[in-house]
Amino acid sequence: MELLKQRIIKDGRIKPGNIVKVDSFLNHQMDVVLLGEIGEEFARRFADQPVTKILTIEASGIGIATIAALHFGNVPVVFAKKAKSKNLDGALYLSQVESFTHGTVSEIQVSKKFITRDDCVLILDDFLARGRALLGLIDIVKQSGASLAGCGIVIEKGFQEGGQTLRDMGVRLESLAIIDRADENGFVFRN
Amino acid sequence: MELLKQRIIKDGRIKPGNIVKVDSFLNHQMDVVLLGEIGEEFARRFADQPVTKILTIEASGIGIATIAALHFGNVPVVFAKKAKSKNLDGALYLSQVESFTHGTVSEIQVSKKFITRDDCVLILDDFLARGRALLGLIDIVKQSGASLAGCGIVIEKGFQEGGQTLRDMGVRLESLAIIDRADENGFVFRN
Repeated sequence: MELLKQRIIKDGRIKPGNIVKVDSFLNHQMDVVLLGEIGEEFARRFADQPVTKILTIEASGIGIATIAALHFGNVPVVFAKKAKSKNLDGALYLSQVESFTHGTVSEIQVSKKFITRDDCVLILDDFLARGRALLGLIDIVKQSGASLAGCGIVIEKGFQEGGQTLRDMGVRLESLAIIDRADENGFVFRN
Repeated sequence: MELLKQRIIKDGRIKPGNIVKVDSFLNHQMDVVLLGEIGEEFARRFADQPVTKILTIEASGIGIATIAALHFGNVPVVFAKKAKSKNLDGALYLSQVESFTHGTVSEIQVSKKFITRDDCVLILDDFLARGRALLGLIDIVKQSGASLAGCGIVIEKGFQEGGQTLRDMGVRLESLAIIDRADENGFVFRN
């Protein structure tokens, strides 16, 4: 997605350790106009799928998924929760996820009420690096018996293994920008 | 907001300890059509304010704020983070917040880059109970020197002290539904 790549070049920053920072428009401050374009692009790429629900994970995925849902016929958005909460009760789908960014392992949770075998679920998230969060979300979709439309990612770090792992599993993965290198010379995108 | 009250009556549930559960449409699964109506209502109520930024806090506030921003001329949304993250660097506004729901105290964080004295900030969140999260966000707006347009809340628990505390401070508070009682007899809303 050319618009997104241009925005990453313009406003993204690279920190030591291959940390790609897009906090000015994607995951701390959010440009809702860009999110609209991103949602439209996901809708184009998954137009052949009868998506009934969008699944994401707190926190940064929520804004992306919510605006994208407007381009998928207003399907409901469900976000997996990372922490135990008094707001969650009843039967839950659980999956273990290790966070590279935060250096923690957590159990992600989705109420069984909100994803069933009748659903066709599209998973959306902001970043794909090692793929742990996506694998947890895919595991939850499998537990539910729903069909998986695929995974839509805003930025894939092509130099980490998550994308390859998912493609090898046969998951349909649509990444709007794949960064193959991010260093002192700037960003290199996969074509 | 009548539509919201009807939805709370229809799909909300009451758990022992005055826990109001709206996880089927607001804070776990999200009905984006309802979020659109909510965003439009906030825009009507704050139409006199030259809002330049919407501030919320992860996680449930993000979907509400993002869709609301579409009704405020596409202003950027900033969400405060509850946990330290490798994604945050540089100068930060910090404020202490106690969570009633999760039984924890956390330090919320917003990058100083994204709220400045030139901003007019609208704070949005899903719930107001004891008001700790809102007080933290208001503290951050004060630290920034920005002007505060006010606070927009989807559901205020009128039987807890947060709303009164904020009104006594002179904060402009717009709650779309105020629940004065939630028990085995159902919901009672303030007129």
